[in-house]
This record gives sequence, C-alpha cells and structure tokens, in this order.
Amino acid sequence: MKKRPLPGWLVFAASLVVTFALGLLASSIMERRAEALQVNTPLAAIKPFESRNSAWGDAYPRQYGTLRDTRDMSFTPPVVGAHGLDALGENPRQVILWAGYAFAKDYNHPRGHAYAVEDVRNTLRTGAPMKLGEGPQPASCWVCKSPDVPRLMNELGIDEFYKRKWSDLGGEVTNHIGCADCHDPKTMKLSITRPHLAIGYKAATGRDISTASHQEMRTLACAQCHVEYYFDKTAVPGGQVVTLPWKHGFTVEAAEKYYDEAGFTDFVNPISKAPIIKAQHPDYELWQMGIHGQRGVSCADCHMPYTTDGSQKFSSHHVQSPLADPGKSCQVCHRQNAGELLRNVTERQTKIADMLARIEQQLVHAHFEAKAAWDAGATGDEMKPVLQLIRQSQWRWDFVAASHGASFHAPLECARILDDGLARAGEARLALARILARHGQLDPVALPDLSTKEKAQSHLGLDIASERAAKAEFIRTVVPQWLRQARENGTLDENAL
Amino acid sequence: MKKRPLPGWLVFAASLVVTFALGLLASSIMERRAEALQVNTPLAAIKPFESRNSAWGDAYPRQYGTLRDTRDMSFTPPVVGAHGLDALGENPRQVILWAGYAFAKDYNHPRGHAYAVEDVRNTLRTGAPMKLGEGPQPASCWVCKSPDVPRLMNELGIDEFYKRKWSDLGGEVTNHIGCADCHDPKTMKLSITRPHLAIGYKAATGRDISTASHQEMRTLACAQCHVEYYFDKTAVPGGQVVTLPWKHGFTVEAAEKYYDEAGFTDFVNPISKAPIIKAQHPDYELWQMGIHGQRGVSCADCHMPYTTDGSQKFSSHHVQSPLADPGKSCQVCHRQNAGELLRNVTERQTKIADMLARIEQQLVHAHFEAKAAWDAGATGDEMKPVLQLIRQSQWRWDFVAASHGASFHAPLECARILDDGLARAGEARLALARILARHGQLDPVALPDLSTKEKAQSHLGLDIASERAAKAEFIRTVVPQWLRQARENGTLDENAL
Repeated sequence: MKKRPLPGWLVFAASLVVTFALGLLASSIMERRAEALQVNTPLAAIKPFESRNSAWGDAYPRQYGTLRDTRDMSFTPPVVGAHGLDALGENPRQVILWAGYAFAKDYNHPRGHAYAVEDVRNTLRTGAPMKLGEGPQPASCWVCKSPDVPRLMNELGIDEFYKRKWSDLGGEVTNHIGCADCHDPKTMKLSITRPHLAIGYKAATGRDISTASHQEMRTLACAQCHVEYYFDKTAVPGGQVVTLPWKHGFTVEAAEKYYDEAGFTDFVNPISKAPIIKAQHPDYELWQMGIHGQRGVSCADCHMPYTTDGSQKFSSHHVQSPLADPGKSCQVCHRQNAGELLRNVTERQTKIADMLARIEQQLVHAHFEAKAAWDAGATGDEMKPVLQLIRQSQWRWDFVAASHGASFHAPLECARILDDGLARAGEARLALARILARHGQLDPVALPDLSTKEKAQSHLGLDIASERAAKAEFIRTVVPQWLRQARENGTLDENAL
Repeated sequence: MKKRPLPGWLVFAASLVVTFALGLLASSIMERRAEALQVNTPLAAIKPFESRNSAWGDAYPRQYGTLRDTRDMSFTPPVVGAHGLDALGENPRQVILWAGYAFAKDYNHPRGHAYAVEDVRNTLRTGAPMKLGEGPQPASCWVCKSPDVPRLMNELGIDEFYKRKWSDLGGEVTNHIGCADCHDPKTMKLSITRPHLAIGYKAATGRDISTASHQEMRTLACAQCHVEYYFDKTAVPGGQVVTLPWKHGFTVEAAEKYYDEAGFTDFVNPISKAPIIKAQHPDYELWQMGIHGQRGVSCADCHMPYTTDGSQKFSSHHVQSPLADPGKSCQVCHRQNAGELLRNVTERQTKIADMLARIEQQLVHAHFEAKAAWDAGATGDEMKPVLQLIRQSQWRWDFVAASHGASFHAPLECARILDDGLARAGEARLALARILARHGQLDPVALPDLSTKEKAQSHLGLDIASERAAKAEFIRTVVPQWLRQARENGTLDENAL
C-alpha cells in the first residue's frame, strides 16, 4: 500500500507537541539534578559533637577545603584595616579609651576563622597562665572560638563550663571555628549550638529560635558569635555566662538600658574614673538596621556565596569580605561593575571612619579633662553626671567601632549613633570646663603625647614588654602541653595541623 | 491538473519564516509608534520666550494639565513637613539661627510650582513695596519663580535685569514656573534658560552645559533653581547677580571655601555677631552624593514619572514627592511593596531630622553664649575664632536643613555634614565656656523662652504684626496694579487665573 504524505498542518502541530514534551522532560531532569546537589545527605557517619573539622571534611571536601582557605589573608579590605594589623598601633586613641581593660594592651584587626584558637591563645588579653586555674580570663573566652565548645558544654554541663577558667580548658579547645559550630552532624541542617543565642533571641523577639526559617538560619548561625554580649557573673555562682543584652531590643539604646538596669560596667577607666561598657562586635544587631538586613539578605548570601567546583555548586566556607570577590557576592544582585560597587562601599566606610575619629578625639579629651577635674578637687557629686555622659558617649562609639562591617551594613544607623555619642562627649566636655573653672582652672587641659601605641601604653604604666615575654614563655611551654593533652584525648585534628 | 499536496517539512519551514517576518513587522510598527510619542514635534506655533503656560498648553494638554495639578497640595509628606506649613512655627529655633535675616520673619515649607509667584509675593521676606524701586529685595528674587524671567532677561539684557528691584518687575512677572523655564519653544527639547547654571556648571565641571546628555538634562533643568546660590554684588555695578559657588566643587566644604575666599557673608546674627552664610536648597549638589544620583537616576525619573492618559504616555508635570505615588516612581525600579519603601524613606528622613534638631540646639546655645561673652567683656580677638566656628557649624546645618529632599537623596552625606557641624558647635561652646570663665561668669547661660515662633520673634524685637498689615495692604492695592499692567502688556495668562 502506497503511503499517503501527512498533511502539513499535522506535521506542524506534532512538531510543537514534541518540542513541548522535550522541554518538560529537560526541566524535570534539571530539577532533580539540582535537588541531588542541594540536599545534604550525609555521606559518612559523623559522630555527635565531632569537633575535628577534617572528620567532616572527608564527606564534604569542598566545604572543608574552603573553610581551610580562611587561612588566606591575602585580601586587604581597603578601609576597615588589614587582617591581623595592629589596631592599637594604627589608632593609639583606643589605648586611652580602653585604659583599665585588657583591650588597651593588645587588639588586632580580625583574621579568618581558621585562626580563631591561635589568635585567642596569642593575644596579651588572655595572659600567660602557666598552670590550670591561672590567668585573667574565664572559659567564656573560648565560647566563640571552637566546635570543641558545644562538645564540652555537653560533657561538662553548661553551668560547669562557665565556672572554669580559660586556662582550664586549653587542652580541650584546639579546633578552630568549623563544621560542628553550625551544622547538625546527622542531618547537616544549620543548627544553633550556643545556648546564649537561643536565650537572647527568645528574649528579643518572643520567638523560639527553632522556628527560624532556613534563610534566617543563614544569618542566625553567624549571630551565635557576631553579636554584642557580656559575661554575666550573677546567673551561675562562680561562673561567667555569655549573655546577650537583648531584652529591650537590638538598638544601642536598648542594650544600654539593659546594662544600666543590671548596674553593669565592664571596667572603670582609671584616667577619668568613668564606668565603661565595652561593646563586642554587634554585627547581627546593626546588620538588621541596614538595607541588606531589611531586605532579608543573609550573612551567608554575601560572605559565603554560592561557588562552583567544576560543575558542582556549593556554599563557599571561605568566610571573608565580599569585596574579595564581588562577582560572586555583590554582582549576583547588583549589575554595576565591581569598581563602582567598591567605590560605593568604601565611600560609606570612609565617612563612618571619619566620624569615628571625630568622636574618639572628643572622648580622649574628656577622659583627661575629667582627670584634671578630679585633680583640681572636683567632688563625686559634681563628676557623676559627667562620668555618665562619658560612659554613654563611649558606649555609642564602641558599638560602632567594634562592629565588623557595620559601616557598610548600616552606615546611616552608625552615623545616627555616632552623632548622638558626639553630642554627649561635647556635653561632658562643656560640663568639665565649668567644673574646672569653678575649681580655678581656666585653661584647656593639655593631652600627653599619644602619637604612638607605645607612648599611650607607657603613659598608662603598662609593662607590655614583660607581658610579651610571659606570653612567649606560655606559647613555648604551655601550648605544647595543651596540644599533647588533646592528642591523648583524641580531639586533636592531626589532619589540620 | 490535480494539485499535489506540499511536503510537511516545507509547510513547517514556511510557517517559521512567516512568523519571523510578522515579528519583525510588529516590532518595527511598535518602534515607530514609540518614536511618534516621544519626539516632541511642536503641534502649534509657540512664539519665542512665550511665558504664558496656557499658550503651550494648547499643544501639550497633558503636560499642561499636570503642571496645573501642582496646585494640589493634598499629599502630605510624612517627615519633612506639610506643604505650606509654617516652618518657623514648627521649629522656632530657626528664628534664632536666622536672626538678622528675613528668614527669621517668615518661612514656610514649599508648595507646588503653581504657587511660585503667589508665594514670593506673599512672604514677609519680600516686604511691602508700595512703589517702583521700593522694598528690601532685588529682582534676583524673581529669578526662580517664572518663565517671565528668561523673557525679561532677553528684553532688558541680563545685567540690566539684575540692577532692578524686585518691585520694579512685579507687573512683568505673573506666570508661575512652567513650560518656557525648561523647554525650547521650537524643538521642545529641554533647555537651560538661566545663565547662572551654565556658568556654574562650566566652573564646576569644565564642561559646556550644551554638551549634557538628555538624561543629564532631566536633572539639569531642575538644577536651574534647585541649587545653592547667592547674590553676587560685585559682578555688575549696582546689580545683584544670582551666582553658584561651585568653582571648587559641589560639596559643603567646596562652597564654604568659595564664600570664605570671596569674603562673603549673608548676614551677621545680632545675638552672637557671627557672620553667617545662609544656605539655599542645595538639592542638585546633595542628590549627586546619594545612590540615586550616583546611579544616574534623574530628578524627572522620580518627580516627573512617566504616566498615561488612556493609551498616551507622557512625563507627568505634577512635580511632587514621589511618595505621593510610589507605583509610578519608586516601584518602576524597586519591587518592594509601597509600605516597605515608605518605611525605608521615612527611616532615613527621621534619622536626619533627629540630627538636625541636635545641632540646632547646640547652635542656639552657642549664639546666646556668645552674646553673654560679649556682655561679660570678651574682646574681638577672643571672639573671632569662636564666631568662625559658629559660622562653619551653622553653614553645615543650613546646607542640610535647606535642601529639599536631601535627607532621602543622600542621607549619609547629610549625616557626615551634620556631625562635622555638631563638632564645630561643640568646640565653639567649649571655647565660650572658657572665655566666660575668664570674664568671671562660671554658670551656664540661660536661654530665653523660645517655645513658640512668636516668643522667639518678639525676643528679637521683630514687629511681625506691622509687617503683616503692610503686606496685606500691598496685596490689596499693589498686586492688582501689577496684574493690570501684565494684562495690558499681553503677558498675563488669562486662562490660568
């Protein structure tokens, strides 16, 4: 039988149907492929509270590899200070503002997560404890440094952990910030491992943190450490509990209200005798008050952007400034060229840096003018309101100065805070001028030579050379003991050395 | 002869070709239609320097209709002050800061372009000139109010225009801001009609303004008036020439340098004797320093958004706050809902409003403390640096306070300026405390009651009631003469009354 050619319209219609079906099929395949890449099925058994990052790295080599890349400090942020740079040397005014507190001894710009344990061992702030139980700091200073902390909190109990000294746990805490800090070893889901965040979040928002969405967790995992906190000495007898001052909210004023109600003071500045609150990187708080936070852009979106290894997509764990690779971070949303985006960022940061310098100058003067007033015979009653103004002003300065990235995350909120702080420093200085005049001193109070960190520290009578020598001895003798102990315990990550 | 059916592949291929051709045709038709809408071919002969807006309105009824809509003041911006609201009543501190200048008498939040002539006639700042040549103000005060100005500059010559008094030209200037201010009557292209902008632009950028792109012109047309300016009394003998202080750039510091070099002072505040520069809405300057300006978004993009009348697209000439209709302005680029966008704007504006209030308080104190210092016997040498600080601080305050919209256009630049100004006010007050102490006055200087505009004005000895009465008489008798004269000249817009 002779074949009849099909009518043209039928061929045309059939071709459309086939094309459509092929499209559907392709789309379905791509979707499955995407699912296969994104669902984090554990590829190896990881035991609960496994703190050795390399043990997770066997199953997640890309994430682990990029985590190790946080050792790479070759990128220098243009405005906020190079990684590891001596921040006190760069700006000796800080020595005066933190006089009476360990930050006046040693303070560097932060380095990557891989340096967390090393840097907290090396800083003069933790002293040189030669034996268990010695040294200036409590175990609380380990809380944000290592996945050994959730393991220890589980083993010891949280209260018991907080009763220890920092030196007590040196042989236990050897693994730098890593996998177990943020991930559940069974499901690989993002996980909150630090109790203070769950408690603070509930106090601030009324919400249980377990109800947070995945996108919220991509910020909250970081907020375990990148927040303002203090060591509460009243909650656990003999303990110092990391606590977030969030009961009244996330603003600088809300935290101040919390501290004032608690009668809390980190230290008394020995120059002015002002009772000071030291701010600790309120990054999560200030991020919320800028446009990226307000639009729901998470920390991980910019600091841990999706990257590829061949055809494999994954979140980079090389947490760093997004400016190191704007193509993967900024330019996913912003179509301007990298140079223009960099200019936008540095403009914001430079303006806030200028405002920081302005209020610092006023505060340095205020501390020395307060000293002059005391020396001239001012009374406690005269000085009390002035010291409160200095406290309030310095709290506002430090809230901005201590935050990583706030000058970009929320520049206008930073400006608002600094301007309020500047006004309070001005009020303090005006009141001091009147007090000094009442006590017969009409001339401006001269500042000592504060042109270098060394001069400022020597003015305070700090013996940094001795502290450095003690620290060197500690690193030479004690740290190897700690590592030996960890090796014996099986918690040392031999593969990460 | 029997027809042979065509092969299927041929039918298929032919259908593709026909579809492609139809697409090309449709695209070409749409493009031509778009061109027809956008090219502004004059539809009626409009004579050169035609200042009556309705004469243009015959040919451009949509643009003219929306221009007339600028009479509609029903939208109230949430933060920056309702249109026409008594700004001095709202904030009596300004009476003190502008003491010695006409702004201390009368200052309202701006109304739409349609009120330009009416409002400048009605304000106490222009006085009540009953005859030609009388009154406090020069013709320069008409420069930004009316398309009669380019007509008059052409008729009289620019220098001659600037030699006249404001009252000399009342019978000539009767048409509110409109078509001929920004458009060439022959080509309808955007056009710069005010010489000061062309001169200032060349000085600032080195570029001839005729080389500006169309998109740049969508901002520069507005920059003819929405800029910082002063009346230069040295350029034309007997004249006061509107001049932009842009030689050193667009920043607050660049303009200050210009004025300092010119030895220019708008007025001396009679309380403190500080030589003050009054800022005049540096909108174009500050817009450049915010993200919208940096991204090339023009004034017209948001304040004159494309709108439709049936199927006809045109730029709305109802220039107003974009917040009155975010769907046509903000949401063209931003996909957030209107409520969220409004919150973003008002948050920025509120933060800057708080900073403005903070520096104002300091400046008010500084003026009265300076007076107390003079009264206590301070010398000119003692006071000179203090008065310079007050001048610098108030210049920074006014630069931000006077700008329409800067708290949204460039909030961080506003914050930077205000913080710098606040520091200078603080320095001034500190120096004054020391001067006062040297002259035996140790106590804080009390402020008079400044709780209302009336109290502040009465403290300055201003007789506002008499000025109001004179103004009422002027409006009753002189303004009708002006209108009669314009009718006789044929420049009155009978259709716009």
